[in-house]
Amino acid sequence: MKLFIAQKNYSSWSMRTWILFKAFDLPFQEVLMHYPNEKKQGGVFKEINPAGKVPALLDDDFLIWDTLAIAEYLAEKFPEKKLWPIDFKTRTRARCISAEMHSGFPYLRELCSMNIRANFQNIGKKIWAENIQLHEELTRIEKIWLERPDVNHFLCGDFSIADTFYAPIAIRIKTYGLPVSENTQQYIDKILNHFAVKAWIDDALNDPTLVDYYEIHTENE
Amino acid sequence: MKLFIAQKNYSSWSMRTWILFKAFDLPFQEVLMHYPNEKKQGGVFKEINPAGKVPALLDDDFLIWDTLAIAEYLAEKFPEKKLWPIDFKTRTRARCISAEMHSGFPYLRELCSMNIRANFQNIGKKIWAENIQLHEELTRIEKIWLERPDVNHFLCGDFSIADTFYAPIAIRIKTYGLPVSENTQQYIDKILNHFAVKAWIDDALNDPTLVDYYEIHTENE
Repeated sequence: MKLFIAQKNYSSWSMRTWILFKAFDLPFQEVLMHYPNEKKQGGVFKEINPAGKVPALLDDDFLIWDTLAIAEYLAEKFPEKKLWPIDFKTRTRARCISAEMHSGFPYLRELCSMNIRANFQNIGKKIWAENIQLHEELTRIEKIWLERPDVNHFLCGDFSIADTFYAPIAIRIKTYGLPVSENTQQYIDKILNHFAVKAWIDDALNDPTLVDYYEIHTENE
Repeated sequence: MKLFIAQKNYSSWSMRTWILFKAFDLPFQEVLMHYPNEKKQGGVFKEINPAGKVPALLDDDFLIWDTLAIAEYLAEKFPEKKLWPIDFKTRTRARCISAEMHSGFPYLRELCSMNIRANFQNIGKKIWAENIQLHEELTRIEKIWLERPDVNHFLCGDFSIADTFYAPIAIRIKTYGLPVSENTQQYIDKILNHFAVKAWIDDALNDPTLVDYYEIHTENE
């Protein structure tokens, strides 16, 4: 299977799928695409995926696109790997919170775009002070994380698809210095120390390529 | 099971889940919520669903929220109903296009909000002329619809979850008079004549309640 992703420093949706492959030791070949330096309307990777986005997965000649559909595909293809929790209600909760991330949290995603190499503590304070919507979204995320079965667990017990959906949020909270509870910080520490997440972060730190429109904060920090 | 929805004239996400229940004859009790007349930040239905949104499903005391997660829950709970296509690749395609709708098409959803009772042909012409992004999104939707197995089929063969995700788009194309191909029009006619979609539309036409911020076009038409 070929997994098409974009630069690891920036592409939070690529990250979700890539760490899913890594965490569950699924066989894949990574194909790294590069964002164009100017933001393009309607998606930039149409030669690979008519929907214009990464991640996209090619299994022989069968294309699967969109992070959530790829996750479901892999969960069905490798049932022994238990990508979703095995208990039906726990699995359903994992799907609820994954789908909520998939379509939600527009302010956090727009205002605090992922930039793993960066340290935007000052920008983060400004964004935090100016955007009450960000407080509401982070409150909701902290509630979801607080409801994990135990403080030492992942979101739905063992590491699952749901954790891959929230891992980039842990990075953003750190990069922008957003204020969170001790319980939230414990989850952040746990997810950022997961070997698959660490592997992604290491690759991001070692990638020197820059994408201008994802670096708009850099000159102001 | 109790299904919480908002007004049928406006709530396109409620529609997706409701017509899924109806189309597959799944047992449910409808609980109709009302949008407040002023747009509120962070979701309006938090007393029912901490995520602040409808649809939300209560199965005994177990809450399932988000349209896509509810669909997966029902597909697992009623496997004999075949809510997703039974062939794995066809099912995967259905999930890809459903997930693409779930997180995508922001211009269409923002500019052409659902209003079943309305006829916004003039507003639609203006919106169409002014927003090139809308053309790109509609082109993509027409491509997805064009790829159904046969012109007389639903999106993935028999009626499935995927059709519930695109049914509100058919209504918007009609309400705003957006220009589409003959093949697209054939799918619109087919989906709008499905008994579950017709039942929702009938209820919407018979609901006299108004929500001001969803009627912003009305005075300009």
